[in-house]
Amino acid sequence: MKNQSIEIITTGEELLSGITQDSNFHWLAKQVFSMGFKVNYQQCVGDSVEDIVSALNLANTRSKYVLVTGGLGPTDDDLTRDAASFFFDLKLILNPNVENRIKQVFARRKRKYSNLNQKQALFPKGSKVIKNSEGTAPGFVLKSNGSKFYFYPGVPREFKSMVIKSFFFDLNLDKEISSKKTFSKMLKVFGLSESEVAHKIQKYATKSTYIGFRPYNYELHVRLISSAKSLTQAKKENNKIEQKIKKSIGNYIYSSNEDSLPAVVVKSLVKKKKFVSITESCTGGLLSSMITDIPGASKCFHYGFVTYGNNAKESILGVDKSILLKYGAVSSQCVKQMVINSRKISSSDISIAVSGIAGPLGGTNSKPVGTVFIGVSYDDKVRVKKFFFPGSRDMFKLRTSLSCLDIIRRILLFK
Amino acid sequence: MKNQSIEIITTGEELLSGITQDSNFHWLAKQVFSMGFKVNYQQCVGDSVEDIVSALNLANTRSKYVLVTGGLGPTDDDLTRDAASFFFDLKLILNPNVENRIKQVFARRKRKYSNLNQKQALFPKGSKVIKNSEGTAPGFVLKSNGSKFYFYPGVPREFKSMVIKSFFFDLNLDKEISSKKTFSKMLKVFGLSESEVAHKIQKYATKSTYIGFRPYNYELHVRLISSAKSLTQAKKENNKIEQKIKKSIGNYIYSSNEDSLPAVVVKSLVKKKKFVSITESCTGGLLSSMITDIPGASKCFHYGFVTYGNNAKESILGVDKSILLKYGAVSSQCVKQMVINSRKISSSDISIAVSGIAGPLGGTNSKPVGTVFIGVSYDDKVRVKKFFFPGSRDMFKLRTSLSCLDIIRRILLFK
Repeated sequence: MKNQSIEIITTGEELLSGITQDSNFHWLAKQVFSMGFKVNYQQCVGDSVEDIVSALNLANTRSKYVLVTGGLGPTDDDLTRDAASFFFDLKLILNPNVENRIKQVFARRKRKYSNLNQKQALFPKGSKVIKNSEGTAPGFVLKSNGSKFYFYPGVPREFKSMVIKSFFFDLNLDKEISSKKTFSKMLKVFGLSESEVAHKIQKYATKSTYIGFRPYNYELHVRLISSAKSLTQAKKENNKIEQKIKKSIGNYIYSSNEDSLPAVVVKSLVKKKKFVSITESCTGGLLSSMITDIPGASKCFHYGFVTYGNNAKESILGVDKSILLKYGAVSSQCVKQMVINSRKISSSDISIAVSGIAGPLGGTNSKPVGTVFIGVSYDDKVRVKKFFFPGSRDMFKLRTSLSCLDIIRRILLFK
Repeated sequence: MKNQSIEIITTGEELLSGITQDSNFHWLAKQVFSMGFKVNYQQCVGDSVEDIVSALNLANTRSKYVLVTGGLGPTDDDLTRDAASFFFDLKLILNPNVENRIKQVFARRKRKYSNLNQKQALFPKGSKVIKNSEGTAPGFVLKSNGSKFYFYPGVPREFKSMVIKSFFFDLNLDKEISSKKTFSKMLKVFGLSESEVAHKIQKYATKSTYIGFRPYNYELHVRLISSAKSLTQAKKENNKIEQKIKKSIGNYIYSSNEDSLPAVVVKSLVKKKKFVSITESCTGGLLSSMITDIPGASKCFHYGFVTYGNNAKESILGVDKSILLKYGAVSSQCVKQMVINSRKISSSDISIAVSGIAGPLGGTNSKPVGTVFIGVSYDDKVRVKKFFFPGSRDMFKLRTSLSCLDIIRRILLFK
């Protein structure tokens, strides 16, 4: 395995004690995969020289490329350089060029340079330094028994920019001499469960094309990985399977190019020159925020209303007090007025409105937590539908927002 | 180390190929830490019997408790039960009770039961089954050479509910007989960098109290971990250090009870019976969504405006067209009108408004991407301040929203 394997070792008590969630491993895995390789192993150990050294030893037995993140900072719990010094049996030496650079950064930021920071200019003798243009801690590279070790800071912004310049550069050199080519595609599905999809499409897997399933929040991500002697052949094989799957689950697939559901909706709105207005009660701004996460959202979205109180529903949207009194804010009657009136106010092509009970309090027997009404208005149509999404508050907000996005997506399919 | 160590093994190609980001490790680490223990190791391997078995072997040499997640589903790439069967040298046996239960779940959900699903009722002979009330794949427990192994599905909702009922139950029994007691506290800081904080407070660390620093988005989380012979003693020691730190960086600490910044703001608003209204342009609903993530937000937030287009700023908020033409939407003049008018419309105690350039397009020489104006109105005051938050679109939205929250928090300190 060693000839091919890539491994990442994440370090830090803050990861093991749950203070922070690591994102470097996920990012690396995604990038490496898109380059036609795969991360094979990941380990996480704490701020202990002994544990870091053990992890380096294990990685040395099985991986060609080993990336270590974290523990290069100035504080006492930053022990990775000491562990590297021990593992490679190389003394830590001060690099005066690096120290000068750190001093300059401090001067530029008008911050005081202290002895604490000198530590960041120490490297195991003979290391190749990796520049850090985003922060003060440079990384370094060393080799041992056929493995190449890269040491990076844990701060994601710094880690990423340095990996691109060092490890990815090496990996691309490898790619040129690799013999087996892979092509991968992800189909994103909304509205069907994993086993429903697996039941319908697992049969299309072949010896050269792997079909993987992954529930992700309320979506299902289906990964097709084809391998062949040439990239053209792998692509061709992949495309054949994709077409079969598309025939089987058609419009449940919202994306075949890694786009998120909000991105698909924004792109489709912009392409078709339609404007959407969004009126939120229980989702409290999340739906608007998901839309505005996408660059270019301002070309299809101008009006968002977060009418979280009944007073706001009355005064901003003109919902009748009598409706609020008789049916409550969580009712098809109220959502109907919300969606009709907000469309008028915003002169939008499509208007969507949502009102429900996110919990944990506020549920009743007839309208338990998780009850939600989603209304849409477009062309001369107004539709309101009731859903039931039990679960935690944040998952309720997410599932409701995704459902709204999928409703808009499906309306746009026929425009 | 083995007597104490806890280890989690996450499995799945979707993790190693970056399709999914694991969240089970982070959740487990956080929970275990809050119970006074710590996760010591984590490994991630792919869907390969060989790699899963190697990971089990390594864990068996060093950890007392080993939790394995993923690979218990019905599809071909679910190999964990096979790996367990090989590792423990125990045959897989069909458990008819479990199979019946799965069939019932399928009947209730009106879904067809297929032979694929029978796989989920197979367990290594002699395993103790862990019920799964959230899904169809039960887990199981087995022991080997002083280590106890727990096998769980990877779906976070299922994993969490099952861990609480099985592993945490065992861990709590351990706690009662443990001799060394630890007490930990997290101080969350906004508005100072890691090195600024470290420079001021690292000197307060003692032999019995560890001070750990972790930048988290634009916050800094400072963890104080004290250990002593009794919990009372550990708490006392912890409190002493906390008071010193509070004296040093005072109001930069927004939370000392793990509350998030939005939670602190919502609790403070509710306690002081104040209402806030939120008017967003560039943050596009994120600030409202962060507030409404917190249960009880409806007691302090009724009016949110996502006036993403100039037309919405004019028609909903009554911003003068002449101001938009002369100064643009990203200007202190525009934000001033936004915040004054939205406060009037909503009759709120505090009103906050924000307009800026999230990018990646839309920047100019005088107003580059990252430029943002934040306005607040409360009592008889109106203040607008310009900030510059360069970076990606989503980080810009987040940093701007956090800054708004911190502004509200600081206003409330003196109310």
